[in-house]
Amino acid sequence: MIIGSEKARLKDLVSILRADEYVSGEYIGRMLKVSREAVWKQISTLRRYGYRIDAKPRLGYMLIDRPDRLYPWEIMYELGGSAMVKEVIYYEDVSSTQDVALRLAEEGKDSTLVVAERQSKGRGRSSRRWVSPYGGVWFSLITKPKISVRNATLLSLATALAVCNIINSNLNIPARIKWPNDVVINHRKVAGILIDMSVEHDIINYCVIGIGVNANLSIESIEGMMDDEDKGYHYYGSTSLMHEMGRAVDRVKFVASLLKEIEGIYSKLSYRDEILASIRAMMLFGPVSIIEGEGRDARTRDGIAVDVDGDGSLLVKTNEGIERITSGYVHIRYYKMHGSR
Amino acid sequence: MIIGSEKARLKDLVSILRADEYVSGEYIGRMLKVSREAVWKQISTLRRYGYRIDAKPRLGYMLIDRPDRLYPWEIMYELGGSAMVKEVIYYEDVSSTQDVALRLAEEGKDSTLVVAERQSKGRGRSSRRWVSPYGGVWFSLITKPKISVRNATLLSLATALAVCNIINSNLNIPARIKWPNDVVINHRKVAGILIDMSVEHDIINYCVIGIGVNANLSIESIEGMMDDEDKGYHYYGSTSLMHEMGRAVDRVKFVASLLKEIEGIYSKLSYRDEILASIRAMMLFGPVSIIEGEGRDARTRDGIAVDVDGDGSLLVKTNEGIERITSGYVHIRYYKMHGSR
Repeated sequence: MIIGSEKARLKDLVSILRADEYVSGEYIGRMLKVSREAVWKQISTLRRYGYRIDAKPRLGYMLIDRPDRLYPWEIMYELGGSAMVKEVIYYEDVSSTQDVALRLAEEGKDSTLVVAERQSKGRGRSSRRWVSPYGGVWFSLITKPKISVRNATLLSLATALAVCNIINSNLNIPARIKWPNDVVINHRKVAGILIDMSVEHDIINYCVIGIGVNANLSIESIEGMMDDEDKGYHYYGSTSLMHEMGRAVDRVKFVASLLKEIEGIYSKLSYRDEILASIRAMMLFGPVSIIEGEGRDARTRDGIAVDVDGDGSLLVKTNEGIERITSGYVHIRYYKMHGSR
Repeated sequence: MIIGSEKARLKDLVSILRADEYVSGEYIGRMLKVSREAVWKQISTLRRYGYRIDAKPRLGYMLIDRPDRLYPWEIMYELGGSAMVKEVIYYEDVSSTQDVALRLAEEGKDSTLVVAERQSKGRGRSSRRWVSPYGGVWFSLITKPKISVRNATLLSLATALAVCNIINSNLNIPARIKWPNDVVINHRKVAGILIDMSVEHDIINYCVIGIGVNANLSIESIEGMMDDEDKGYHYYGSTSLMHEMGRAVDRVKFVASLLKEIEGIYSKLSYRDEILASIRAMMLFGPVSIIEGEGRDARTRDGIAVDVDGDGSLLVKTNEGIERITSGYVHIRYYKMHGSR
């Protein structure tokens, strides 16, 4: 972990170095109100973090290359001020950003992003394992949305909407929401949402939004990502942004855009109809199986997902009429329609 | 805190001593499969806990008097086996049973009751202070109800219903539910419910049900119990079971009956209509003020509470028609009706 004061210093230094030309140590020192020796020390720190910085006598320093890391100062720089994210806590390796964030939330932290390059015990829905190697985007956001717990079931879909919007608009790939908490590209999972909440009566004390995105992962590295329950079933597998685009994404920019999108959507959560319309437009509908129970006891019925209702439940047309599937205890499998994306 | 193995031993010993006659040390030893010396040691332990036990040569031991304490073995003995309470954790003094239980739940404990004789930082709704001297009933129950978070708002009312039922049937005092989380006798608060939940998407990971009952408290000792917000307002004050009955209640029996009632009601939570009908029958309706905002910014409107709806919201008739008050961000004050109990 990197301490707060160092984060702030490095954020300022990196923003000066972004000038894309040589900047003198004396100028940097003046801007940061530190000595040239202190500047030199911080340049060394950045180099240790993987930054390539050229130093020329009389000219000063120039940033040649940034490492592909989700450093706090990079995310904060791209965010450029956010009410939703006041602090970024960074790990190279962590058990699970969600578990760390939950602990911090319990201790009173708010508006904090926990991000990691790798998770050893990444968590998916219902405590399923989530494979999280380097190259992905794995983060958990501590936030306190001012909504009733009744609207909280929409949070998962609203967050998936934000992920879709950014993939669609920034990367120009047609991502869709797979109810209740996944984002897919051509039926292949590219991102998942995990939401933990602490609730007092119907007031949300805090909310931890976990997001995992297969960003720059090779298709081989995510082969193991399928849920056990999906194995041997009508399983479409996972994909990554890199695989779909044919090139790597700038993860820092992706995270910053996504956070801004989430902030925008959450601020409109009380305008339920507007958010719902956006969610509907982005949702995957069509033929599904409704699976109740687990393993040998599982009962399966077929139907057609036709809509989501006001509190985020999936409406499925079956032989018995329209059924309302609330997330949680029921699993839904989507059949791929011929020609559908 | 008293450790588990000691609890089990003392539970067995106390149940033997309940014979209401002299029981020989040799007989006790045989029943508990320990030596007579071990029996003597455990008798000493009980005496240290405040039990009066007479010992007569050749006759053995007889229980003369139990201390007025909510000891785990006493509660477990009265409960006589419960799926909902597998363990009782006891404190003479604790900061807050709710905070302790929340921590234990976070660590994975389930079906556990945390009980204390006194709380130094007892918590009411919205972190308000709850005065908790010796003589009351202060406990928190860790449980995992298999319900969707959508039905969770009913939990508070369902728990208040359990408290009412026990006060009504066991003590024959007309208690009513004051929405959203209090139990009152003739408009005076006698018990409060506090519910904290950890939620993943719409699945409840765990639930901590906090209950505070002014059991054997003198009316003087609860004068300080009014909420700050109630001071100087139409405030009816608090009361205690002892004050209403004119004699002390057996707290151990009260706790055990209450836990059994809660277990029964929770097991029927999915039969919403049945539970709702019981809640309605026990609810305080009539003239209320709806208070939005706090302090100087508070806006107040008058209305008549007429019903609760399917998810536990209060329906209030105002000039603008029927308004649905969801708990949490709005406060409700009840006016006492002439002659109403």
